[in-house]
Amino acid sequence: MKITTTLLLLSTVISMAQSQSSDEIKLKEIYTIALTNSKCYTWLDYMSNKIGHRLSGSVGAQKAVDYTKSQMETLGFDRVYLQEVMVPKWVRGQKEIAYIVDNKKKITVPICALGGSIATPKEGITAEVIEVQSLKELSDLGTEKIKGKIVFFNRPMDNSLLETFNAYSKAGDQRRSGAREASKYGAVATIVRSLTHSLDDFPHTGNQSYGDIPKSQYIPTAAISTNGAELLSKLLKANSKIKFYLKQSCQTMDDVLSYNVIGEIKGSEFPDRIMVVGGHLDSWDLADGSHDDGAGCVQSMEVVNIFKNLGYKPKNTLRVVLFMNEENGGRGGEKYQELSKKNNENHIFALESDSGGFTPRGFSFETDDANFNKVQDYKKIFEPYLIHTFAKGHSGSDIEDLTSDKILKVGLRPDSQRYFDYHHAGNDKFNAVNKRELELGAATITALVYLIDQYGIITK
Amino acid sequence: MKITTTLLLLSTVISMAQSQSSDEIKLKEIYTIALTNSKCYTWLDYMSNKIGHRLSGSVGAQKAVDYTKSQMETLGFDRVYLQEVMVPKWVRGQKEIAYIVDNKKKITVPICALGGSIATPKEGITAEVIEVQSLKELSDLGTEKIKGKIVFFNRPMDNSLLETFNAYSKAGDQRRSGAREASKYGAVATIVRSLTHSLDDFPHTGNQSYGDIPKSQYIPTAAISTNGAELLSKLLKANSKIKFYLKQSCQTMDDVLSYNVIGEIKGSEFPDRIMVVGGHLDSWDLADGSHDDGAGCVQSMEVVNIFKNLGYKPKNTLRVVLFMNEENGGRGGEKYQELSKKNNENHIFALESDSGGFTPRGFSFETDDANFNKVQDYKKIFEPYLIHTFAKGHSGSDIEDLTSDKILKVGLRPDSQRYFDYHHAGNDKFNAVNKRELELGAATITALVYLIDQYGIITK
Repeated sequence: MKITTTLLLLSTVISMAQSQSSDEIKLKEIYTIALTNSKCYTWLDYMSNKIGHRLSGSVGAQKAVDYTKSQMETLGFDRVYLQEVMVPKWVRGQKEIAYIVDNKKKITVPICALGGSIATPKEGITAEVIEVQSLKELSDLGTEKIKGKIVFFNRPMDNSLLETFNAYSKAGDQRRSGAREASKYGAVATIVRSLTHSLDDFPHTGNQSYGDIPKSQYIPTAAISTNGAELLSKLLKANSKIKFYLKQSCQTMDDVLSYNVIGEIKGSEFPDRIMVVGGHLDSWDLADGSHDDGAGCVQSMEVVNIFKNLGYKPKNTLRVVLFMNEENGGRGGEKYQELSKKNNENHIFALESDSGGFTPRGFSFETDDANFNKVQDYKKIFEPYLIHTFAKGHSGSDIEDLTSDKILKVGLRPDSQRYFDYHHAGNDKFNAVNKRELELGAATITALVYLIDQYGIITK
Repeated sequence: MKITTTLLLLSTVISMAQSQSSDEIKLKEIYTIALTNSKCYTWLDYMSNKIGHRLSGSVGAQKAVDYTKSQMETLGFDRVYLQEVMVPKWVRGQKEIAYIVDNKKKITVPICALGGSIATPKEGITAEVIEVQSLKELSDLGTEKIKGKIVFFNRPMDNSLLETFNAYSKAGDQRRSGAREASKYGAVATIVRSLTHSLDDFPHTGNQSYGDIPKSQYIPTAAISTNGAELLSKLLKANSKIKFYLKQSCQTMDDVLSYNVIGEIKGSEFPDRIMVVGGHLDSWDLADGSHDDGAGCVQSMEVVNIFKNLGYKPKNTLRVVLFMNEENGGRGGEKYQELSKKNNENHIFALESDSGGFTPRGFSFETDDANFNKVQDYKKIFEPYLIHTFAKGHSGSDIEDLTSDKILKVGLRPDSQRYFDYHHAGNDKFNAVNKRELELGAATITALVYLIDQYGIITK
């Protein structure tokens, strides 16, 4: 008996060792293909340099739908299709103009309208400026101090936080809710310090919401570059009576028809278990959105290209989903979830890559403890690829509401240090993406999809 | 007795816990200062944009000596001094010219002379080209095939290797020894594919050595951009008789006096135990060497700035050493070692940062097993800063020959994916350095120095 047990244990150990070893080999192959024979960089080059920005409802967004669908059709999916979704269409109009009026001097500063903002009157708005650091400070000041003024939100991102997304979260309310709140106290417009660590001349756009306030109370809102914000703050300290001028002609049009782009490979063993990998196809309009989120789209497509190169057929159904309208509406993610629910689909896994095409550091997992513990077993096999982060955390905007009986939702976590240099700004361009970093991200996603496909998730 | 032992154990545990906790606090402070109140980025801006390249023996190198000395004098060192060292002086002369002669077409390609190369005759050199992938292939071809030709070394870096420095090592012999070896078979010049993963138009220089061959047998040698190399290789496949023209006017002058820049804080408890932190002050001449190795210099200086901010006085003597002439001679490192030996100094620790100012990933340690095992204990405390690599490996060119009874030699290991995009090329400029990534490197070095200062090394 003792011998039998020992043999049994030994054979288990050997089988584990073999299995481990074959996974190790597979990961090595995945990373090698990504670094030597991938297509993601070429796809991104096309999307960025031939198509350009892909703001929801724009010509670029439609071209990107057509392009990615046509490319996906070459990758051996069982089916590539478009999923209709009505999306908001907001257009920037003419380039914004802004300057500080200090006595008789006009000092031009770079601004850009925030997504969803209304235009100023044609002649622009000129008003005194009141600087605040927070929504709390705004409400403390109240109508008496705010009325008739331009509110200038100038709380910087917290440089001391290692993970830049945490700093972004802490500073984000100024941009998202600043106009809505300032309007309640009679402000005529708001300008918001750009959400970036960098001191430079790029204004960073992003979505904002007027929430439930009546349309008549909407006020124009714009982001100002960090250098511009520093200057304005300095001048205000010297003279609180200086004025600010801004002019923007953005507007919200009727919703238009757009699409999620979806490729599907039916699972050879478990066709009813669905794994989703995706990014969002839309971008902001100030640059070509190479990091946000061209990178995530081409990395998701690359998963299937790598599997094709490997000759690997997934056991579970694999879907690549390029979501439309993450930036200013989230309609693509909503539509995908709605139809998934309607069709009683069973998703076991969903990963979104939407944190830039930088060197991958790991994953954040949105799941129960059992599955979170299970994925910790994969840490070791990822170590040779310098993938160390296996943390609980946010998965991705387009998949966060996706539900199933049991589901492992994941966000790819690239190095975050440079992300906000480019985020929603005019420099989020192809040349800001490093080929190897992008490819390593694609390999890291593929490796996780492979392991989930092999070992499933805990469903009980 | 049992109770006593338990209490003793408990008190040890508590003391370890407290010590751990105080180290954790200290590391948090170090990283916070680096990310919010450091000077390294400003120093690098000055070195890169106000001084420019710092090739050994150049005006820039001397200006960098003066500048860093003057900055170090503001940091509270007990002593800042220059260490004299004679360095080689090689100058590029006029910008190189090269083109492919394909029938009557002349196709210009970007080249740059390799460090230490001789000039071509004034009229340049025109010859047929023979492409090889390795020194072995060169010797297999032999004199008959090589004589009178330009040898074109075109073995690319291996993209499949995760750590780019490994790919660099594997491809480097073509650059370092190509001319010397080709000369033995009667080649008239060599051109070498630039050592970068990127396909672009930047030729990457770097040192090469004629070794022991007689001066009369020296032949000119240059690097060609990867795009140029791809084109040349393609054209050669179509027509092996095409010719190549190159002209360069570089020359080696007499050695000149230069300096290592050294700042020293005497240890409060162990003044005879020396810890060195450094980078190399010289750079190549095609750009301002912001990554290689301006970054390492300012990060090393930052260690003392952070300690100053912390009010931390090291127990061991701390030296910041900015070595001169790492790139094309290594004389600064040699001189430092020579004088250290002569003065019977006892170095317990030496760290060089010379792998670029990218997000730090960890360290490579060149030491005995006992000390290698000891530093593993620090892994945990570095985890919140995403520092995971604690590997055996190369420390740094300037410290690799530094000896002491027992010494822990360390190389900072930043993320390596982008390094060879810029290495020794015209784009190694300030704008290629991200402020936070640079600062995190400085913090990571400082944290290790702090821990070594606290806990020493194993000397038995």
